Amino acid sequence: MLPFIRSDLGELSAYTPNPGGTPDEPAPISPDRLDANESPYDLPDELKQKQAWTYLQEIESNRYPDGTYTALKQAIAEYVCESAAPEPADNITPDRITAGNGSDELIRSLIIATCLRGEGSVLVANPTFSMYAILAETLGVPVVPVGRNPTNFEIDLAAAQLAIEKTQNPPVRAVFVVHPNSPTANALTPAELDWLRSLPPQILAVIDEAYFEFSRNTVAGELHRHPNWVILRTFSKGFRLAAHRIGYAIGNPELIAALEKIRLPYNLPSFTQAAALSALRHRQQLLASVPEIIAERDKLRDALAQMPALQVWPSDANFIYLRLKDAGGADALANITQQLRAGGTLVRHTGGGLRITVGTPDENARTIQRLQLLFSR
Amino acid sequence: MLPFIRSDLGELSAYTPNPGGTPDEPAPISPDRLDANESPYDLPDELKQKQAWTYLQEIESNRYPDGTYTALKQAIAEYVCESAAPEPADNITPDRITAGNGSDELIRSLIIATCLRGEGSVLVANPTFSMYAILAETLGVPVVPVGRNPTNFEIDLAAAQLAIEKTQNPPVRAVFVVHPNSPTANALTPAELDWLRSLPPQILAVIDEAYFEFSRNTVAGELHRHPNWVILRTFSKGFRLAAHRIGYAIGNPELIAALEKIRLPYNLPSFTQAAALSALRHRQQLLASVPEIIAERDKLRDALAQMPALQVWPSDANFIYLRLKDAGGADALANITQQLRAGGTLVRHTGGGLRITVGTPDENARTIQRLQLLFSR
Repeated sequence: MLPFIRSDLGELSAYTPNPGGTPDEPAPISPDRLDANESPYDLPDELKQKQAWTYLQEIESNRYPDGTYTALKQAIAEYVCESAAPEPADNITPDRITAGNGSDELIRSLIIATCLRGEGSVLVANPTFSMYAILAETLGVPVVPVGRNPTNFEIDLAAAQLAIEKTQNPPVRAVFVVHPNSPTANALTPAELDWLRSLPPQILAVIDEAYFEFSRNTVAGELHRHPNWVILRTFSKGFRLAAHRIGYAIGNPELIAALEKIRLPYNLPSFTQAAALSALRHRQQLLASVPEIIAERDKLRDALAQMPALQVWPSDANFIYLRLKDAGGADALANITQQLRAGGTLVRHTGGGLRITVGTPDENARTIQRLQLLFSR
Repeated sequence: MLPFIRSDLGELSAYTPNPGGTPDEPAPISPDRLDANESPYDLPDELKQKQAWTYLQEIESNRYPDGTYTALKQAIAEYVCESAAPEPADNITPDRITAGNGSDELIRSLIIATCLRGEGSVLVANPTFSMYAILAETLGVPVVPVGRNPTNFEIDLAAAQLAIEKTQNPPVRAVFVVHPNSPTANALTPAELDWLRSLPPQILAVIDEAYFEFSRNTVAGELHRHPNWVILRTFSKGFRLAAHRIGYAIGNPELIAALEKIRLPYNLPSFTQAAALSALRHRQQLLASVPEIIAERDKLRDALAQMPALQVWPSDANFIYLRLKDAGGADALANITQQLRAGGTLVRHTGGGLRITVGTPDENARTIQRLQLLFSR
């Protein structure tokens, strides 16, 4: 180990992007990519043409991006107000918004803002989005994991509460939850929400609403009552902009000001800013695909639930989580993942189950066929 | 202050992007933007059209970017080998390359890799690129500043050596230098290079070659002898891609592996990757503007040097640094900056002087006229 590198970094492994592909095994040609919870649809041609026109006519490649992106923050604030449910929100002003190179940058900034210098630990409830723990560990911040109820994947709130009481040096300073959770697809329950409401003011609750466009359920309307809550959202899922890398945070202006200090000053390329603005302007057109994806999700879930080998959970997102009823364990799941892959469907083996993104109707039909074939052998 | 935010963050101020503009004073319409060391030239039309075509035909907006960008690393490695001078390098393989959301992300990753958990401080020689200190401070990492020789801006090496010997808890773990320095435009001297060579193995030397395409002088050929050196480069200057946000690091494979663990897994948008690859493929065409900019720089410098009020330094970069001969101090410089701005030229007031980017021939002529007018009053 080079002597100037932090000793604890040696034990960490890098996040594996594009998990469907491994260097040793070439991926099938044009597989059904149901492993990253992306939308199955690119932008409509007309919007892509507009975006290309914007690049040619309005973006100077040689100039740094607008580092303040005031118009984008304004547009995001309007969208958040308009879409808040069940409780409406009309007080989400641009000073409550910041944006990042995907939500990943914002997760990192939140941990930097709260936990560095030995001031805090991060609490997560597994299985959940792995980047919270990975980014904490790269920053040398301790991660306190608790479990979930194996029946409905509700956070083990007693364990979480105990962990907060017992963890010292450093204490828990941030709790990360996804609403709905990935990979298990369940929205926060009333009990979980009550627990988040009960957190003391020195603990930040990060509520990641990456799948909001599918769940249509947000805590944005309640945000003004909780200065220690922050919401994360992304353009990578319902808005179909994963290639462009843009996420945003909604929170107390004081927290947002701290995140603005921490973020890289030119974190959003000009083309990314233009794509996000265009997506918001054409949101009705883009989000028109959401009801179709939800209908497909429910069909896919029903078909999977009829397979005797599988236990399938309800979903508030654009993916489905399932496990094997017989405890075949990790080997059996790895085997299924591998066989699906060979057949042409990429899915994600994670958290003791499989996470399958809802694709196009054709892709979903093939997923069902391939799984049926697999279990009929 | 919200009680979950690190107490030391309150004192920090955010980096001001687009320093030429302040919210209170509207910028002149279409000013000459000579304040950010950008290339004055957008990509040639033909390359912009190609890039737009790539977006329309090859990039799926809804899919995450390639998180490994193997082809881009390969292309960067080839370019680094080809352009190494004075000592040739043929051993820069892709495992010695990583890339970031501008060099900014790489600077942050380097500080994370070496200094967090109270393991290190960062040494800088002021005036220099301000992001080293800003990013260290946002991470709670102490910054040890030393000065420079006021005549030629060589680092005060005795002070730097003493600072390394005296700094404990935590010791200096990384030294940041720019080659050539910003804002003072001077390349590393033989004495500075010898000092970097003499650094002990537990101190990382970060040599930022952001302006390499103008200086044509790199330490890449020497890198294999120094596992504790890392070079930063960017596509934002000579390659005219500031809007796209891409920088890269060249270093020991073990350090690069650590940076790969730390970086955000999808840190480069698909369009950014495509732009960088295209720029490398068409590098002869793009870098053809460099000799013109260098010739313009020398003309601009000669003209400025003839103004009795100014002390002007030589430049190895695409900008010129000057100070007032009479100790008018910060007020006089702020006044000149403001008057130039009102006249239509944005420059950067920094480090006790003015930093003026070399623009197009017309822009440079206007800069000279406006300064002449100012001093003739």
